[in-house]
Amino acid sequence: MVTEILHIKNLELVASCADMLQIGTRNMQNFDLLVESAKTGMPILLKRGMSARLEEFLLAAEYILDSGNDRVVLCERGIRTFETATRNTLDLNSVALACELSHLPIIVDPSHGTGRASLVKPLALAARAVGAHGLMVEVHSDPRNALSDGQQSLDFSQFADLISALGA
Amino acid sequence: MVTEILHIKNLELVASCADMLQIGTRNMQNFDLLVESAKTGMPILLKRGMSARLEEFLLAAEYILDSGNDRVVLCERGIRTFETATRNTLDLNSVALACELSHLPIIVDPSHGTGRASLVKPLALAARAVGAHGLMVEVHSDPRNALSDGQQSLDFSQFADLISALGA
Amino acid sequence: MVTEILHIKNLELVASCADMLQIGTRNMQNFDLLVESAKTGMPILLKRGMSARLEEFLLAAEYILDSGNDRVVLCERGIRTFETATRNTLDLNSVALACELSHLPIIVDPSHGTGRASLVKPLALAARAVGAHGLMVEVHSDPRNALSDGQQSLDFSQFADLISALGA
Amino acid sequence: MVTEILHIKNLELVASCADMLQIGTRNMQNFDLLVESAKTGMPILLKRGMSARLEEFLLAAEYILDSGNDRVVLCERGIRTFETATRNTLDLNSVALACELSHLPIIVDPSHGTGRASLVKPLALAARAVGAHGLMVEVHSDPRNALSDGQQSLDFSQFADLISALGA
Repeated sequence: MVTEILHIKNLELVASCADMLQIGTRNMQNFDLLVESAKTGMPILLKRGMSARLEEFLLAAEYILDSGNDRVVLCERGIRTFETATRNTLDLNSVALACELSHLPIIVDPSHGTGRASLVKPLALAARAVGAHGLMVEVHSDPRNALSDGQQSLDFSQFADLISALGA
Repeated sequence: MVTEILHIKNLELVASCADMLQIGTRNMQNFDLLVESAKTGMPILLKRGMSARLEEFLLAAEYILDSGNDRVVLCERGIRTFETATRNTLDLNSVALACELSHLPIIVDPSHGTGRASLVKPLALAARAVGAHGLMVEVHSDPRNALSDGQQSLDFSQFADLISALGA
Repeated sequence: MVTEILHIKNLELVASCADMLQIGTRNMQNFDLLVESAKTGMPILLKRGMSARLEEFLLAAEYILDSGNDRVVLCERGIRTFETATRNTLDLNSVALACELSHLPIIVDPSHGTGRASLVKPLALAARAVGAHGLMVEVHSDPRNALSDGQQSLDFSQFADLISALGA
Repeated sequence: MVTEILHIKNLELVASCADMLQIGTRNMQNFDLLVESAKTGMPILLKRGMSARLEEFLLAAEYILDSGNDRVVLCERGIRTFETATRNTLDLNSVALACELSHLPIIVDPSHGTGRASLVKPLALAARAVGAHGLMVEVHSDPRNALSDGQQSLDFSQFADLISALGA
């Protein structure tokens, strides 16, 4: 189970029951949280800040590595641009470049990266094509009635279709 | 042969020898050029403005269609963002969404879209995965000595490798 | 009277009755229009492209100067950013920098630059403070019923208040 | 003395000697730091995230207010755009709009907002014209040899000139 860690004070509790800690996009440069999370020794999923340049993203990961924890997975989840037709702009250029520049694995979140359920499958396939090491996809039993992020969530049938398309 | 048309005064000359007219990114909202090019009846390759929203891109294509020419191919070539590690940010979200919203074919230019030769292959594969109907790739016999865009041009060997990877 | 020139074919007609030709933001890199407008010898108001860097803006002006017409006025009208609370982001940094880098006069359009009537006055005053050589403001007798751009138009009373605040 | 607070663990020490705590741009959505800083009861200077929409900026301030501390000063310090001629793009639109939407005072940092010493004075004057309640300016006895941010720092003579221009 991957759990987003928002507050340092919850770190002990969350670490006791999660398998991996996620640092969310708004906290990519919350250096306290990076360092304290790293010190748990647990694997860390670091999401790219919504306006972080690739260089800043890789440097944020260094805070975790420098704290003695090398179990870091990067996650591209879309950047903020002028385009309003999609919630964010998924930056697959940076995924391909991160594969060149860094030894760290990088996964892609096409749910936040597009904000539209219908775009999750094509962008998931594109993420694989560009070399991503994994995917993070939002799934909900009833997206229309989801409390949050329903528009970008797949239902079970759509998720099965995605898995089938990936041949996984 | 696809030839970029920059000036209306050259339209007759270019149309006499090219197979397809390209409207470049800086001219996407040059309505004179759109309409006059359309009137030649030739197929038109319309490149997305570097800061055009998808809606504006599709509306620019309407100028050509409305002039009685339905031989339009759209081309995503990267948008302008804060990211400086790549020349542009290739927006594959918009390619997938254009496939939903429009009947027009859309191709992808990963050379301008990334600005780096090493990224052309992975992004070309991603473009195909996302549903693009074609690719436009810069190739040069000797990229290091190219007069322009050498950094993003493939040499013949790299191009052969790309074609092989595409299984085309 | 300043009149926006959209189509080269209308150039003769417009030039015969206008005092100044305006090149709109979407045409800043329409090189045909720049050159043909320049050749009329009339003063040219060149609006910055909504995503043009300052360097590109100044280089577009060079097309006019290079055509033998030195009667060019630049106009900053807001750039496209991620901020959605205002229609555009008025870039007064670039106005101040243009005053350093170029001998050309530069004016500011706080109407398009903000998209909100209530912000026109403060940004007009800021434009003057930053060194702008003039202002271009939308005024309408009845903004609520304007056919376009009503939200950013001043009524006569607001315009009188602006003029008074400027001490002009 | 205003001191930037980067780490919660330093809060007690910094609070014991500073007059005001500054939350830096990278920490605008570090909710732990907002809440813990607020609880000191000290005045808080909250800098806008470099890609935060105005709405997000005002909502971040709510975390401080909601923690029972109403001594909040907002600070606009430039946003991240495609423009590379200046370090950031100072968004005076948002300053004027914040004055409409919020009761909180807002100051402007033209040093970070422009990244160029020569632009600090004109933008400081513009900030005042747009209604800003104060300024935050970097000054150094010898900017050319400053360890950081020298390019945007005023020397004493330039600072005296700024104060004189402001008539303060």
